[in-house]
Amino acid sequence: MGAILEETLKHIKAADEEAIQKAWNRLDNLTKPIGSLGELEEIAAKVSGITGKIHNKINKKTVVIMSADNGVYEEGISNNTQDTTVIVTNNFTKGITGVCILAKHVDSDITVVDIGVKEDFNHPKIINKKIMYGTNNIAKEPAMTREQAIQAIEVGIDIVDNLVKEGYDLLGTGEMGVGNTTTSAAVFSVLSGISPDVVVGKGSGLTEEQLINKKRVVQKAIEINSPDRDDIIDVLAKVGGLDIAGLCGCFLGAAKNRIPIVIDGFISSAAALCAYRLNNNVKDFIFPSHLSAEPGAAYMMEELGLSPMLNLRMRLGEGSGCPLAFSIIEAALCAMNNMATFEEATLNKECYVDIREKK
Amino acid sequence: MGAILEETLKHIKAADEEAIQKAWNRLDNLTKPIGSLGELEEIAAKVSGITGKIHNKINKKTVVIMSADNGVYEEGISNNTQDTTVIVTNNFTKGITGVCILAKHVDSDITVVDIGVKEDFNHPKIINKKIMYGTNNIAKEPAMTREQAIQAIEVGIDIVDNLVKEGYDLLGTGEMGVGNTTTSAAVFSVLSGISPDVVVGKGSGLTEEQLINKKRVVQKAIEINSPDRDDIIDVLAKVGGLDIAGLCGCFLGAAKNRIPIVIDGFISSAAALCAYRLNNNVKDFIFPSHLSAEPGAAYMMEELGLSPMLNLRMRLGEGSGCPLAFSIIEAALCAMNNMATFEEATLNKECYVDIREKK
Repeated sequence: MGAILEETLKHIKAADEEAIQKAWNRLDNLTKPIGSLGELEEIAAKVSGITGKIHNKINKKTVVIMSADNGVYEEGISNNTQDTTVIVTNNFTKGITGVCILAKHVDSDITVVDIGVKEDFNHPKIINKKIMYGTNNIAKEPAMTREQAIQAIEVGIDIVDNLVKEGYDLLGTGEMGVGNTTTSAAVFSVLSGISPDVVVGKGSGLTEEQLINKKRVVQKAIEINSPDRDDIIDVLAKVGGLDIAGLCGCFLGAAKNRIPIVIDGFISSAAALCAYRLNNNVKDFIFPSHLSAEPGAAYMMEELGLSPMLNLRMRLGEGSGCPLAFSIIEAALCAMNNMATFEEATLNKECYVDIREKK
Repeated sequence: MGAILEETLKHIKAADEEAIQKAWNRLDNLTKPIGSLGELEEIAAKVSGITGKIHNKINKKTVVIMSADNGVYEEGISNNTQDTTVIVTNNFTKGITGVCILAKHVDSDITVVDIGVKEDFNHPKIINKKIMYGTNNIAKEPAMTREQAIQAIEVGIDIVDNLVKEGYDLLGTGEMGVGNTTTSAAVFSVLSGISPDVVVGKGSGLTEEQLINKKRVVQKAIEINSPDRDDIIDVLAKVGGLDIAGLCGCFLGAAKNRIPIVIDGFISSAAALCAYRLNNNVKDFIFPSHLSAEPGAAYMMEELGLSPMLNLRMRLGEGSGCPLAFSIIEAALCAMNNMATFEEATLNKECYVDIREKK
């Protein structure tokens, strides 16, 4: 294991339970029926557990977008041309894609990382962390070496370390890479033990016949590579992708730096699951956004103990669900910081029966 | 029927189907897998149907909060003291309650209306439209006369007419009134034919024993008053409340003025259902926010053909779900207005298979 990764895993501590308790004490004294802000209260308390503070305010936020190509493209698992990865990554710099518009709507930045696209960019807005020019075809051989997988995870950690130094305190996770619902399904199938038949979905759009092929490709990738499901890095190296590994590093980096980090869709859920399996404490730092339409997404939410905030049937990727979740997280913190207490509101808390279901 | 109400019902027209079609033409040409922004696309197209324009931008938004007391309070259906209606309505003017904080977070105003609180306010931030000092006890007699119910609906229409004159083009619906989950459950039970046993919930917090009493009270109110389920005004007058009737008027007013209007929780859902039953076209103007925890809420969403955007287990009322929905509606309009087309993004639309479920 790489030194940076090892050091990071060692430094990830669980949530601050005392801060969470103090947060709930305040929440239960705010002028409202007890527990009536539902998930907003859970969010505020969870952020307290991350920062150790009752009152929190987001200063700078960004969606980290990892772009990479996947060798499995040659198996016909996507209708996109392979240069879509290059084109859309370039489009991020022009501010014209879905995630760009939604991020701007909530005053969020985006941070674009080339972790393995087939072509070079040389663009000031694209951080060059290229590990290889696209992975190998997982239906024939491992996507990358174990060393490259570790390197990709450490890119994610490094990116987050730098963002934190720049003052970012809320992160989202996005990706661009033709073929990455295929690799994510493979990773997820191995980690969960659930058959590719159940896990594989239509990604950005496939016919029924193409879906059958995609399932077969994922099955073949797992059979040929026989990844060890208890060795996350082995799984990422053999049937994963550079984007998934990089985002896995982002989740680890956020947990180490104790800042909240948001899942978008299926690919970033797979990355979050890998990070969680590497260190269970990571789940205290992860927030969901929406529920991806890909079949495996719901399972991952459940294993991570997360319930999606948004019910919008989105399946765009790019990190497009994160800005909407940012807004809800900030709303939760606003409520925590600014609502009056029962006393300030001249109301009697004793009037309210606590009808929350006990966890 | 009152002249204003009659005139309003006559002037509510359905969505502009041509504008919706044009909106979808644009949405299907934006740089993303077809349909992949899910509900955001549905929202943008629905707003086009309301305004008749493909590109829309919200200029001013507010949550209309109707405050009123309910005579059924004396049946012990709430643990709140009855003066909570007065106290919380006053607290709206101080900007310290849940809806105030959440509205501020998204640059929304709130508009507080006294449509029937037991005490007088004389506060510049509270619009005085009092119809009576709280309704009568529905477990013993009709809540109000038919004329008063019509008057309350017309207050809502009038409030919206004035807000539209002031430039507001997106509205939310909120309420404050101890006992109003009881009246809403009664209205809903009559309109749906579903037993109070199923419909009545714990509101702001009740013990199991108190819940049984609340169900009995709703049952009794319906038996004693025998409202005619095909006559919405009869139902509102006999077992409803001034807040529900006023909000019903807001939904009608928004539809007449062709601006979008958002449901919060159980009480405003009941009002939306009444407005919809008065004129089915109203549903083209209504947007959901979250799904109230009250048992009847899901049914109302279904009858109105709406699917909640937010999954936050909120049950505060006050209109607190609306600001979060405002942000999502504005995000949808941003995407519609600012995302590049396939051509602008140098991508080929033909690569994307349309996998949307046909409606």
